[in-house]
Amino acid sequence: MASTLFDPLFGADRVAARLDDASWVAALVAVEVALAHAASEHGVVPAAHADLIASAAAGLDIDIAALGRDAVTGGNPVIPLVRLLRAAAGEAGPSVHPGATSQDVMDTAAVLLVGWAGEVVLDDLRGAADAAAVLAAAHRTTPMMGRTLGQQALPTTFGLVAAGWCAGLDRSRSRLADVLATLPVQLGGAAGTLAALHPHGPAVAASLARALRLAPAPPWHTERTRIGELAGALAVAAGACAKPATDVVLLAGTELGEVSEAAPGDSSSMPHKRNPIAAVTARASARQAPGLAATLLAAADHEHQRGAGPWHAEWQPLAELLRATGGAAARLRTSLEGLRVHPDRMAAHLPTGTVDTGHAAELADTLLADRA
Amino acid sequence: MASTLFDPLFGADRVAARLDDASWVAALVAVEVALAHAASEHGVVPAAHADLIASAAAGLDIDIAALGRDAVTGGNPVIPLVRLLRAAAGEAGPSVHPGATSQDVMDTAAVLLVGWAGEVVLDDLRGAADAAAVLAAAHRTTPMMGRTLGQQALPTTFGLVAAGWCAGLDRSRSRLADVLATLPVQLGGAAGTLAALHPHGPAVAASLARALRLAPAPPWHTERTRIGELAGALAVAAGACAKPATDVVLLAGTELGEVSEAAPGDSSSMPHKRNPIAAVTARASARQAPGLAATLLAAADHEHQRGAGPWHAEWQPLAELLRATGGAAARLRTSLEGLRVHPDRMAAHLPTGTVDTGHAAELADTLLADRA
Amino acid sequence: MASTLFDPLFGADRVAARLDDASWVAALVAVEVALAHAASEHGVVPAAHADLIASAAAGLDIDIAALGRDAVTGGNPVIPLVRLLRAAAGEAGPSVHPGATSQDVMDTAAVLLVGWAGEVVLDDLRGAADAAAVLAAAHRTTPMMGRTLGQQALPTTFGLVAAGWCAGLDRSRSRLADVLATLPVQLGGAAGTLAALHPHGPAVAASLARALRLAPAPPWHTERTRIGELAGALAVAAGACAKPATDVVLLAGTELGEVSEAAPGDSSSMPHKRNPIAAVTARASARQAPGLAATLLAAADHEHQRGAGPWHAEWQPLAELLRATGGAAARLRTSLEGLRVHPDRMAAHLPTGTVDTGHAAELADTLLADRA
Amino acid sequence: MASTLFDPLFGADRVAARLDDASWVAALVAVEVALAHAASEHGVVPAAHADLIASAAAGLDIDIAALGRDAVTGGNPVIPLVRLLRAAAGEAGPSVHPGATSQDVMDTAAVLLVGWAGEVVLDDLRGAADAAAVLAAAHRTTPMMGRTLGQQALPTTFGLVAAGWCAGLDRSRSRLADVLATLPVQLGGAAGTLAALHPHGPAVAASLARALRLAPAPPWHTERTRIGELAGALAVAAGACAKPATDVVLLAGTELGEVSEAAPGDSSSMPHKRNPIAAVTARASARQAPGLAATLLAAADHEHQRGAGPWHAEWQPLAELLRATGGAAARLRTSLEGLRVHPDRMAAHLPTGTVDTGHAAELADTLLADRA
Repeated sequence: MASTLFDPLFGADRVAARLDDASWVAALVAVEVALAHAASEHGVVPAAHADLIASAAAGLDIDIAALGRDAVTGGNPVIPLVRLLRAAAGEAGPSVHPGATSQDVMDTAAVLLVGWAGEVVLDDLRGAADAAAVLAAAHRTTPMMGRTLGQQALPTTFGLVAAGWCAGLDRSRSRLADVLATLPVQLGGAAGTLAALHPHGPAVAASLARALRLAPAPPWHTERTRIGELAGALAVAAGACAKPATDVVLLAGTELGEVSEAAPGDSSSMPHKRNPIAAVTARASARQAPGLAATLLAAADHEHQRGAGPWHAEWQPLAELLRATGGAAARLRTSLEGLRVHPDRMAAHLPTGTVDTGHAAELADTLLADRA
Repeated sequence: MASTLFDPLFGADRVAARLDDASWVAALVAVEVALAHAASEHGVVPAAHADLIASAAAGLDIDIAALGRDAVTGGNPVIPLVRLLRAAAGEAGPSVHPGATSQDVMDTAAVLLVGWAGEVVLDDLRGAADAAAVLAAAHRTTPMMGRTLGQQALPTTFGLVAAGWCAGLDRSRSRLADVLATLPVQLGGAAGTLAALHPHGPAVAASLARALRLAPAPPWHTERTRIGELAGALAVAAGACAKPATDVVLLAGTELGEVSEAAPGDSSSMPHKRNPIAAVTARASARQAPGLAATLLAAADHEHQRGAGPWHAEWQPLAELLRATGGAAARLRTSLEGLRVHPDRMAAHLPTGTVDTGHAAELADTLLADRA
Repeated sequence: MASTLFDPLFGADRVAARLDDASWVAALVAVEVALAHAASEHGVVPAAHADLIASAAAGLDIDIAALGRDAVTGGNPVIPLVRLLRAAAGEAGPSVHPGATSQDVMDTAAVLLVGWAGEVVLDDLRGAADAAAVLAAAHRTTPMMGRTLGQQALPTTFGLVAAGWCAGLDRSRSRLADVLATLPVQLGGAAGTLAALHPHGPAVAASLARALRLAPAPPWHTERTRIGELAGALAVAAGACAKPATDVVLLAGTELGEVSEAAPGDSSSMPHKRNPIAAVTARASARQAPGLAATLLAAADHEHQRGAGPWHAEWQPLAELLRATGGAAARLRTSLEGLRVHPDRMAAHLPTGTVDTGHAAELADTLLADRA
Repeated sequence: MASTLFDPLFGADRVAARLDDASWVAALVAVEVALAHAASEHGVVPAAHADLIASAAAGLDIDIAALGRDAVTGGNPVIPLVRLLRAAAGEAGPSVHPGATSQDVMDTAAVLLVGWAGEVVLDDLRGAADAAAVLAAAHRTTPMMGRTLGQQALPTTFGLVAAGWCAGLDRSRSRLADVLATLPVQLGGAAGTLAALHPHGPAVAASLARALRLAPAPPWHTERTRIGELAGALAVAAGACAKPATDVVLLAGTELGEVSEAAPGDSSSMPHKRNPIAAVTARASARQAPGLAATLLAAADHEHQRGAGPWHAEWQPLAELLRATGGAAARLRTSLEGLRVHPDRMAAHLPTGTVDTGHAAELADTLLADRA
């Protein structure tokens, strides 16, 4: 749940601001306005009507709670919103929502919202990766003990460890960016045939996509692979945050003490504690992603021409998943940007004698060289 | 996410009101006040201090957003709340939070919140079950076609179908009620040993439990089976809502038309539609439960004496799961309380000739006789 | 997948032997034989036929692969099995499968299988708990550092830590035992009305339950709360295994070195390694449980009188979940039964000076006193 | 679990044959042999040794059950396999497993297995998509009623419906093919630094990749985004199978009767039934994918330089997920390849009068034109 109490703690405040009710309403309105314009481009509605609708929408002061209550009967907020817009648009009222069905507007608005929130997620993923890269460069030859199954194994360098973090973050960000860059418009009309816009349907859809900077696409009312791809990309990114967060928690453990956070947390009972709280909460956020992704992946079995439940089941988990991944990235970024590395503690865990770190440093260089 | 836009639609508005930030803060404060009193009962802090703390707490006007921001450093809102309470309690300040650790207060507050929200969930589960029982009684001998794998099979009665819905709802409610009735207090202190309250720890914990009407329990900081049990019980209840909701959607399909909702939804593009929207949104809510339950079940592996992520990962999914199950129950209740049954349409799908409904009616009676 | 290559490694060999194809076939045959006898008790089929069926079944040499191939058309192995039994039973052929539908036999056989495999799971959960209790008793006053969020906090005792492990294992075992003790028979006939056995249906079902030592129950073809409860109980038990396994891995880490396994694993590249491999593989098994439980919980929305997919989706995840939980319990048991505790290493991490362990020891006693 | 009893039913027999114990062992051996050759290419071991190892491996008759038992101590089957190979290789024994760690061999073998099984999954996804395309072409102007939220809405064509199925199948196959085409080799050595092969590590890894037709990659022992991507792609493909399977089940329902399967299933109690069993079991397989994907996504948080549980937790869910998706694709292919379409039944549900199907047919053409 959106929460001023918990969002900062889980790093979700920045992304949550783009996923709140007001953002949803703004997205829904933006879609209706853009749709009227797109329809007018192809003569489906008068251009003057589209302008009137845009003005009316701009002047509308929507009571979100009332809209929410009015959404119950029809099962989504588009139905009452269209009523509001029609009433406000005066003579242009009949030109509101031309040829569209609620799902067209909900899906396109959801995609807009994903794009807005996704920008924040990408930014924090990049920030975290950059911080990891800085650590990797600074410590490319800092020797530390490699550990496998929790046991000291053979030496590595902290630079290689951090470069590995960076690689996972970069890789998952790149995939997420690809998915976000091709988010598609939705326009299919009542039964997904674009019948009511015939023969202008595909052209109106293309104009709508252009106006909203979305990818053009044939109707995908019940072809939900894109939602699944998005879910997968977000959950993979959350996992790419979990790995370094887990390492920070372990390396910051008292007995290892090889890293510490810049602003370690205190405790209500033990003021001396140095909790790596940014990494801890990054882990906590990331752990919420797989279950949410599973919900979205399981929602693929939409029935007939509009799912009777699976579709509605996507809206909130999608927002929650953006919050979880975005929160994990934000908190990890904080952890890594301020991370204190303690080479002396690392050295204390190494076997005596010279440690050759050349091969590890070279691998770190290879990993960092791949960065875009 | 808590949402005035979506909560009514998904039936989550009533339960969400008991899970919001203000409820969290109220629960946290209630625990601190009760803890001070419990400690004073056993001479750990002066009784006068406990009273001062209670007064101070009652007078406190907490800026939740500020509390949220201040919670970031320590990783939970208890730490800044204790600071606020200490400052407000004047000379009783040192008696705030006696012998406790943040997790004691967070866990106990979470349990209070679960209890508050759980009441609503139980009420709607009972309401839905009662509505199913009314339908079952009214239609114990109303013949309809049984369908297996989507195909007409042999006749049954609508009464038996509805009695089966009722059985699942009752069974899952009963289990959930058992789990809710034994939600335990948490009091363990910094390392879960009750050291700071020695030798009064167990007695203070028992008093605290009594004051908050919770079950007494030894510290369970990292023994999270209770959270898993709660997750399981909630997800099973969501599943018990999904089954009748799916049946309503299918039976209300145009070609079957054997039931319809009292207030079927319209559509932004097709005003003639009679969408069984309460059942549709009940399904949508219920489908979000298994993934959330999985997150909570996976969070069991708390490390050492306080989990470094798994613990924090419980807070929001627990609230979301209550919302999902509560929403499913509320929407199903609406669907069933207003359900219109169409025996003529049922009859139209039966083979010609007399249908013996006696055995089905008897089974329905058996199922209903088991109701508490 | 059942695997002679991986099952021993993940502790699943013992439980897997009760979940293989031969066990399924044995259970299916046992149900058909018991059903014929139960029907004969109430005069539905001749007693002599029931005996003939039992003899025929005993003499049947079933080609499981062929049965599997023949199961494709109808969607379950009961249909070809009934054909085999009818052919083998000679004149008693028509008395095979009296009044039953495939789901009756599949569900009852699944329940038998769960009971057989569940015994092994309970046994290993008890073994692990007993081992934890032994450790707790032996080390009730052995001081060690408590750790929260990975940081040293305040002292506790290893006895209290182990008693906490024991409490979670006992609690989850107790709940699982309750669920297993009330596994219900399934008998409903084609549409779940017991029509074909009328008026003897409930009596035949009761006899069948008695013969198979299952709980009597009205038909639950599409009322799947019991499956959900079982899934929840198994996943909670897996979580109760994950917690101590995680602790063992962490405490056995080279820098802590406070425990070690009796037979630590070596490595293909580093023969000096002392990997706590039993705990590692217990964790690995346990981590597979939540996703499987989610699948089973999500399968609750069976359509009409027999689910068109959700039902079939239960069979393999149920077996996998038993393997995951059973494997986790078995490997944890091995880990704990042989666990070497190193009080000197524990002492090395404590602050200098006397550590009062009395309160921790008392709490451990309290936890252990609750054992059944 | 691999099962001759259930695999055919769930369409998993073909894919399972590439995921069984023997396949695992073959893959492990193939990696060891290829590694010896790759190392010899760069002078790390004598070329004659590599040839001896290859001969020894070819002649080895491995007792898989014994290998499984011997795998317990070290936690994976590579350790005992290396012992076997060394013993069999005579003087070349010391050249077995040069510079590698168990995870190198396990991960690379897993990747080989994924590739082998993935071919089958891709083939059945393509087969199902082709069948959908054939249906779409044959019925591009066959009018049928579109249905939203289970209610009749406005007309569409069956061709457009089938083209939508095809689009989802193609899209998910294309993504899965991309992921499968870039499956990476794993070679990092004990701590992931390639130290033991220095300075030839990267070159040996490149040779190994070439020999096994895998993508070259720096070590990714604990950078598991590729596993997550694979999990996501497989689960999306399963969802793309679930959608048409659900539609077939619904459209084949007695009251709709708009399609039927070529070989509908019978029933043990109702021989007249025409169950769309291929679609039913496709749904059942597909429903198991999201939970398995969640397990794999959650396993990303590998600790340090080798995960102490998360890594091991990948092996079986990965195979299970391939089985689930492959099974769903195979069964859907069977369903669609034999699907009987009933235009007369479709017509019976349409409003009277002429139905314009031009726009739907055009959209179907657009969707099909995108096919590769």
